[in-house]
Amino acid sequence: MPARVVLLAGGVGGAKLASGLAAQPDPDLTVVVNTADDTDMQGLLVMPDHDTVMYTLAGIVDRDQGWGVGDETYTTLEALGRLGEETWFRLGDRDLATHIARTARLRAGRRLTEVCLELQRSLGVATPILPMTDDPVRTHVRTADGWLAFQDWFVRLRQRPAVSEIRFDGIEAARPTAEVLAALEAAEVVVIAPSNPLVSIGPILAVPGLRAAIETAGARGAPIVAVSPIVAGKALRGPADRMLADLGLESTARGVARLYAGLAGGFVLDSADADQEADVEAMGLATLVVDTIMVDDTTRRRLAADVLAFAASMAV
Amino acid sequence: MPARVVLLAGGVGGAKLASGLAAQPDPDLTVVVNTADDTDMQGLLVMPDHDTVMYTLAGIVDRDQGWGVGDETYTTLEALGRLGEETWFRLGDRDLATHIARTARLRAGRRLTEVCLELQRSLGVATPILPMTDDPVRTHVRTADGWLAFQDWFVRLRQRPAVSEIRFDGIEAARPTAEVLAALEAAEVVVIAPSNPLVSIGPILAVPGLRAAIETAGARGAPIVAVSPIVAGKALRGPADRMLADLGLESTARGVARLYAGLAGGFVLDSADADQEADVEAMGLATLVVDTIMVDDTTRRRLAADVLAFAASMAV
Repeated sequence: MPARVVLLAGGVGGAKLASGLAAQPDPDLTVVVNTADDTDMQGLLVMPDHDTVMYTLAGIVDRDQGWGVGDETYTTLEALGRLGEETWFRLGDRDLATHIARTARLRAGRRLTEVCLELQRSLGVATPILPMTDDPVRTHVRTADGWLAFQDWFVRLRQRPAVSEIRFDGIEAARPTAEVLAALEAAEVVVIAPSNPLVSIGPILAVPGLRAAIETAGARGAPIVAVSPIVAGKALRGPADRMLADLGLESTARGVARLYAGLAGGFVLDSADADQEADVEAMGLATLVVDTIMVDDTTRRRLAADVLAFAASMAV
Repeated sequence: MPARVVLLAGGVGGAKLASGLAAQPDPDLTVVVNTADDTDMQGLLVMPDHDTVMYTLAGIVDRDQGWGVGDETYTTLEALGRLGEETWFRLGDRDLATHIARTARLRAGRRLTEVCLELQRSLGVATPILPMTDDPVRTHVRTADGWLAFQDWFVRLRQRPAVSEIRFDGIEAARPTAEVLAALEAAEVVVIAPSNPLVSIGPILAVPGLRAAIETAGARGAPIVAVSPIVAGKALRGPADRMLADLGLESTARGVARLYAGLAGGFVLDSADADQEADVEAMGLATLVVDTIMVDDTTRRRLAADVLAFAASMAV
C-alpha cells in the first residue's frame, strides 16, 4: 500500500519532486506550499510557488525555465507597460488568467485554500496543493539598501544585493489551515523538498503550530526526510547558496542538514556530496546518498522512489 | 477661433463623432462619457463607452467592430474559460491591460476621472474624456425575465429580450465631477452625439446637476445640438430602435428629437429623414439635414464640421 505523503515545497525544486512523487504507482500525495513569496502585482494576487507546483503537476509548465506556463505570450504585459505599469515581473497572458480568477474569487470572500484547490481541479491536477496558511505572510529581506519585499529583491534586483536578514511579515498572526493540519495528521511520510531552506521551507516551518504538527507526525512514527537543495556547494536553482553564505551559514548540503537536524530524521545528499555523509550522520540523521538532480521525468520519478524507499527503511 | 466643444457620448457613435471633432483645425474638445454601462468582469472595472472613445481617439480601435483594440488576441480569456470563468464578455489581451491598470489604481484609492485621464495620456489621447461621474451608476433593464444588469442583457443575451423599463442604479447619489462642471461652464457648444438616447445619453442627463449645468450653458448662449442616432427608422448601431419601440416611443429621428426638445436648441437629421424636418421644427428646434452616416474619417470630419457650422449659425 502506498504511503500517505506530505511534501513541503517551494517553487521549482519542490515542483519537480512533487511531479516525481505524483508519478509513483497509486500516489497519495499532498503538497504544502510556501506562500511567503506571494505578491500583489497590478492588484492581482500572484503566488509563484503555488503556481509553479500547479503548472508542473498540470503538465503545462514552461519546462525550459521551470515556472510559468509553456508556450506563453506577453501581450497584456506589453500593453500594461504602455500604460505606465511596472513590468519587471513577467506575467504571461495564460498565467494572468490564474491571477485574475484567483483575485476575483478572493475578493468575493472565498478562502485562499478553497480557491487554490478549485483552480487546481480546473487544470486537472489530482494532487492537492495546499497553501501553508490562508493568512497573508510576506517575506522581506534586508540588504545594504534597507528592507525589500521579496519579489522586489528576487525578480527586480535579480538577487544581487547581499541579504543580511530575513523576516516573514504576518507570520505571528498566521495559522495553518484545517486542510494542512488534516494532511499532517494523516501523513505516513513527510518530505522536505530540495527548496530554499531559508525563504521557501523556512516560512512553512515558521507558521505557528505547523512545525509542531510535523513533529507530532514524527513522534507517532512518520519518517521526516529532507532532500538537500545544495549540491557540491551550489544551489541547483535560485540564490540559496549565496543567501546561506551571506547570513554566515555553511553553504553546503551539510549546512542545510544542520538547519533541519532538530526536525528531520533522514537527509538525502547528492552523490557529489558523499564526503559529507559522515558529518550528517554525526548530527543524528539517517542518510541516503543518491543522484538528486532532476533533469527529466525519469530522474524525478527515480529520486521520488529513492526518497520513499529511504523513508520506509527509516520507519522499520 | 475654434469653439470650446463639449460632446456628450456613449460608445461607437459617440466615438466616431468625437474623432471627427478632434480632427477639426485647433480642436478644443472635451468628451463626457456615459459610465452607466460600466461593469465588473472578473473583479476588473470595464468601461465600454469610455474605452471605445479612448481607443478611437488613440487610433488603436478595432475599426471593423467599432470597439475594442485592433489586432487583438484572446489568450487570457481562453485561459479564464479553462478555469471556469464566464467568457461571454470578450475581453482581449490588449484591452485587459486597461482594465487591470485602471482597477489597480482605483483600488489604490485614486479617483476614476484622474485614472481615466492618465490612461488616455498614456495612449497619446489629447482630448480629455471625462466620466460623467466618479460615482458608480449601473443601468438595469427590465425584461420578461425580470431585471437584468445592462451588459448581461446587452452582451450575454444579445439584446434579445424586450425591455419594458430602464433604471440607473446609484444615480441619485451620483454627482458630476469638478472636471465635467468646469468643461460645461467653459463650453461654447454642447453636442449630443448620435448615441442611444435611453441608455447612453439618458444616464448622463440623469446625473443630478449635470442637465442643469448644460441648461446654464445654453442660457448663456452656448448652442446645444443633438445628432439623431436613428436614420430611416433604424439605429445605425445597437438596439436603440427596438428599445424605443418596446418602451412605446417613436423609433424615428423625430421621436429622438422629442426626447431632447426640452434641452437642445438644434437637431441634426439624416438626409434620409428630410421628411421629418418640419415636425422637428414644430417642436421649436432648429434643424440641419445632412448625411450623418460616418463610414470613414472623411465623413466623420465632414459631419463634425457640419454640426459646428450649424451650432455657429444658431449662436448668431
